[in-house]
Amino acid sequence: MKLNLTTGIIPSLNVSAGLLGFFFVKSWTKFLEKTGWLKVPFTRQENTVIQTCVVASSGISFSGFGSYLFGMSEVVAQQTGFNNAQNVKNPQIGWMIGFLFVVSFIGLLSAVPLRKIMIIDFKLTYPSGTATAHLINSFHTPDGAKLAKKQVRTLGKFFTFSFLWGFFQWFYTSGNGCGFSSFPTFGLQAYNNSFYFDFSSTYVGVGMICPHIINVSVLLGSIISWGIMWPLIGAKAGNWYPAGLAPGSLNGLQGYKVFISIAMILGDGLYNFMKVLSRTIIGISQEIRDKRKAVIPVVDGDLPEKTFPSYDDEQRTKLFLKDQIPIWFALGGYVTIAIISTITVPKFFPSFIWYYILVIYIVAPILAFCNAYGCGLTDWSLASTYGKLAIFTIGAWAASSGGGVLAGLAACGVMMNIVSTASDLSQDFKSGYLTLASPRSMFISQVIGTAMGCVISPCVFWIFYKAFPDLGIAGSQYPAPYATVFRSMAMLGIEGFSALPSHCLELCFGFFVAAIIINAIKDIVGKMWAQYIPVPMAMAIPFYIGSYFTVDMCVGSLILFVWQKVNKAKADAFGPAVASGLICGDGIWTLPSSILALAKVTPPICMKFLSSADNIRVDNFLS
Amino acid sequence: MKLNLTTGIIPSLNVSAGLLGFFFVKSWTKFLEKTGWLKVPFTRQENTVIQTCVVASSGISFSGFGSYLFGMSEVVAQQTGFNNAQNVKNPQIGWMIGFLFVVSFIGLLSAVPLRKIMIIDFKLTYPSGTATAHLINSFHTPDGAKLAKKQVRTLGKFFTFSFLWGFFQWFYTSGNGCGFSSFPTFGLQAYNNSFYFDFSSTYVGVGMICPHIINVSVLLGSIISWGIMWPLIGAKAGNWYPAGLAPGSLNGLQGYKVFISIAMILGDGLYNFMKVLSRTIIGISQEIRDKRKAVIPVVDGDLPEKTFPSYDDEQRTKLFLKDQIPIWFALGGYVTIAIISTITVPKFFPSFIWYYILVIYIVAPILAFCNAYGCGLTDWSLASTYGKLAIFTIGAWAASSGGGVLAGLAACGVMMNIVSTASDLSQDFKSGYLTLASPRSMFISQVIGTAMGCVISPCVFWIFYKAFPDLGIAGSQYPAPYATVFRSMAMLGIEGFSALPSHCLELCFGFFVAAIIINAIKDIVGKMWAQYIPVPMAMAIPFYIGSYFTVDMCVGSLILFVWQKVNKAKADAFGPAVASGLICGDGIWTLPSSILALAKVTPPICMKFLSSADNIRVDNFLS
Repeated sequence: MKLNLTTGIIPSLNVSAGLLGFFFVKSWTKFLEKTGWLKVPFTRQENTVIQTCVVASSGISFSGFGSYLFGMSEVVAQQTGFNNAQNVKNPQIGWMIGFLFVVSFIGLLSAVPLRKIMIIDFKLTYPSGTATAHLINSFHTPDGAKLAKKQVRTLGKFFTFSFLWGFFQWFYTSGNGCGFSSFPTFGLQAYNNSFYFDFSSTYVGVGMICPHIINVSVLLGSIISWGIMWPLIGAKAGNWYPAGLAPGSLNGLQGYKVFISIAMILGDGLYNFMKVLSRTIIGISQEIRDKRKAVIPVVDGDLPEKTFPSYDDEQRTKLFLKDQIPIWFALGGYVTIAIISTITVPKFFPSFIWYYILVIYIVAPILAFCNAYGCGLTDWSLASTYGKLAIFTIGAWAASSGGGVLAGLAACGVMMNIVSTASDLSQDFKSGYLTLASPRSMFISQVIGTAMGCVISPCVFWIFYKAFPDLGIAGSQYPAPYATVFRSMAMLGIEGFSALPSHCLELCFGFFVAAIIINAIKDIVGKMWAQYIPVPMAMAIPFYIGSYFTVDMCVGSLILFVWQKVNKAKADAFGPAVASGLICGDGIWTLPSSILALAKVTPPICMKFLSSADNIRVDNFLS
Repeated sequence: MKLNLTTGIIPSLNVSAGLLGFFFVKSWTKFLEKTGWLKVPFTRQENTVIQTCVVASSGISFSGFGSYLFGMSEVVAQQTGFNNAQNVKNPQIGWMIGFLFVVSFIGLLSAVPLRKIMIIDFKLTYPSGTATAHLINSFHTPDGAKLAKKQVRTLGKFFTFSFLWGFFQWFYTSGNGCGFSSFPTFGLQAYNNSFYFDFSSTYVGVGMICPHIINVSVLLGSIISWGIMWPLIGAKAGNWYPAGLAPGSLNGLQGYKVFISIAMILGDGLYNFMKVLSRTIIGISQEIRDKRKAVIPVVDGDLPEKTFPSYDDEQRTKLFLKDQIPIWFALGGYVTIAIISTITVPKFFPSFIWYYILVIYIVAPILAFCNAYGCGLTDWSLASTYGKLAIFTIGAWAASSGGGVLAGLAACGVMMNIVSTASDLSQDFKSGYLTLASPRSMFISQVIGTAMGCVISPCVFWIFYKAFPDLGIAGSQYPAPYATVFRSMAMLGIEGFSALPSHCLELCFGFFVAAIIINAIKDIVGKMWAQYIPVPMAMAIPFYIGSYFTVDMCVGSLILFVWQKVNKAKADAFGPAVASGLICGDGIWTLPSSILALAKVTPPICMKFLSSADNIRVDNFLS
């Protein structure tokens, strides 16, 4: 949730979830064994089921609190526009839980029929799911268990360090611009252009998990935007756009920041959508052709013979197909929930009329299929791209009613939930396939996890919302950047390009095309060179938020790089544990810190950074 | 020099000097060997001679710049008293070099006759000299050379780190109370009582070299003084002493700080003086008795037969006695320089009349003998105690002339130089004895080193003096605490106790007695427990300076302690290298930093620490 609300960059936390899941349950079962209550050992199947539940539960928190849900709020509306009753819905714990319940479960059911097609028939890789399965399999060997123990100890150490560091920092942040998070590491001028190291252990950890090229991309993006473009465009105030606007106004510099980054994200998304779609079509047509040639009758539940590369695969496929979830159950469930949802959701959002929802529910399974297939090939879930598609189409459709922004954002929520759950679940099923876990247990575990997430996530968000009154305000500690970006997209869908400041459209178009070209070059040059070409999606993020977190991430990248040079084996084994410790420790510190904020306890000291001249003035003033 | 002027706590830098000396000359000779110009290998004898030269040269900088020399200056006089032309002599590069030349060489000559008595006849251990010799011997084995190379690499790493850290800190210290050196680590109230970690890598390094009990002692001293006593005495302002005095006035709180710490230092010094003196007398009388019994005629240059415990010792003694410095040379040189000195020194200090100097030169050889003997037994040079003795006696004697303070401080300089050189040289001769270095080469090397030191040290001090205008002011970056302490002692010798604020004498007496009792207990309980009893001399230092450096030192101690727990062998091998790197890097950074100060370049940023309330006021003021 903290990641959601600070920069929106969320690394894969599957490894740490797996690590901690194994550690806690193993300790628990050991304890039970000693007391004699437990007679059976802790198996990898159970481990996979637990992991699935945890990921399903935590996945809900990544789904939309930083983007479409919070984009509906008044705080964001004040900064972007359409600040009227029809287009604003402030977060309330009640409707958030209700909304999540009706939209999250339908995704689960849409994934069920895809399962066999993706994993048995198409034999897709699902890189993350495969990695998680290997991790879990490795835990359940004696060597793996020993290594896991050491990794957990490392994680614990860095967790503690990161937590205490957050605690220590707190004391020096009694006001705005105070403390380590405002440290002008590269001087005051660089600081004013948001270049500084903000001592956030979270983003150092994120930098350690993300591939080096992602970290370089964000840094490059921040140099292009905050280092070059914004100072230049800022100098055009009064010329390109009226001078003296409120700093958050989308008619001024802020508009360039938001819309150029949207353009780049859309360019990248569109390219990848087309790429994945074409691969999906080619892949499927290949499948069909192959099957025609082979003339082996494949009936659901039957085993195609002599097609297993190994004994392992045979066992896996047998087990995977044995414990089925009936197709009528999935279909029936989908229809039932769709009906409930079509009736209830318009109650939350009056402008989001029932036939919009129906349309989404009809289109969604197709998109879910595309996304699950693409994810299996490339590990890249395009859920947010499909969400943006929903924003534009539904937003424009509902524009005439006056409540287009809210309708667009709500549509985005429904769409993203279905589509992302489809790919996430396919990943999980792949893990289950490789660890011989029963698909039916997996499904039940996902249902439980989702239900938990639908309650827990809104509560966590609620704490942030109540504790930090400047949540969502640009430049604050929790800018929730994607909330602004998503809302601005909805507005763009309704208003068209006429509202943009001068030359903004040209710039947006340039960056949109650049994003597509960079992606195309990346695909053309081959893997050897592609790893040195930046990722436009990553470059676009600092455009809006600022550069400080890119510095943090590059520091993390640098640490890992040096570590890998010194001791590659150790860095690979313990790097993710260190990074997860850093992220989690700082994240957990926000819990006591938000309690302190709720209790209105201000830190006692402000560590302030003044220019030499200001310092003399302040010294005179204080004495 | 930096250590001199900040806290006056100077750890033994012999090991790092040896390490670097070996490294540089080894690299140089390797280079020469490769070019073919050098045919003979680099031997440990040469190493010892170089080491001796370096130590002699750097030793001069520790001799008095932070104490008696700077104690004569106007800056210190303004804070303590006797601020008149007769009792003030500001540092000038000319007279400092001249004065050092006449007083430093006489110490060299007084040590020559002691040499044989201390090392061959009395077989004293000289722990530091022995340690240095073992270090040098170890370098000249293949394993030792390899280890030394690794140690130098470690030293280099931490040197670089410490230098860069100093550089980084500089940017944030544009004013007083700015930067990391004013970081209220334990809150603002603790900061006001000087309890904070000031991020000085120098004192973390010092803490790593000093024994744990010394670090605990300084911390204990700072808790007693700044934690308990000064707040209590500060509350008596207007009662025990007039309120509203200048913060540096010795009639107020500052008087308690200075005189109580002097009392403790004197108590400790007196106890150790008596102890070493009694041991010296017992030792000598034992020697004489033993020789009478043995009836072996020992003529200078002859070898007493059958008394060598090993072949090594025999070789060492033979070589040590072969290459003599004639006794007539030493004696003649002493008298000549004494005459020159007696004529020239009163030119520098008019109130320091020639017969005072003559008396010192007559008494000095006896005290030099005592000190060399005591140092050989306990490794503890009491030079500064003898110097204080000179301050009181000569100061009181010259009181009637009106220039007693200056005379006392100058006398201290003459006395300290002779006495400390005698013990330092004996340490060196012991190293030479153990590494089979020629005593004559050692002597020549010391002469060269001393001459270098007499020129280099005043120049370095001059840079500090010119670059930092607040040098010597209490509470500044360079308080030069011992300058104030030494001058206050001279004043005490002249004025008596009447000038002290109320109850100060009683407190001083209490701490004086406490210092003696603690020392006595330390000696009585035996080694087993003595290591847990604090050292009064160390406790007294923070009384005047503050607690921040004690925190640094304890951090250093803690780091070493943890390191020793984790890997004792590695900590012992690399601890001194890490510490030396930290000290030297920060020390060398003061060179560019003082050049910047001379060029009037102010750092661009002030990292300020404001209370929450002040911060709100400042924010309002700035906007």
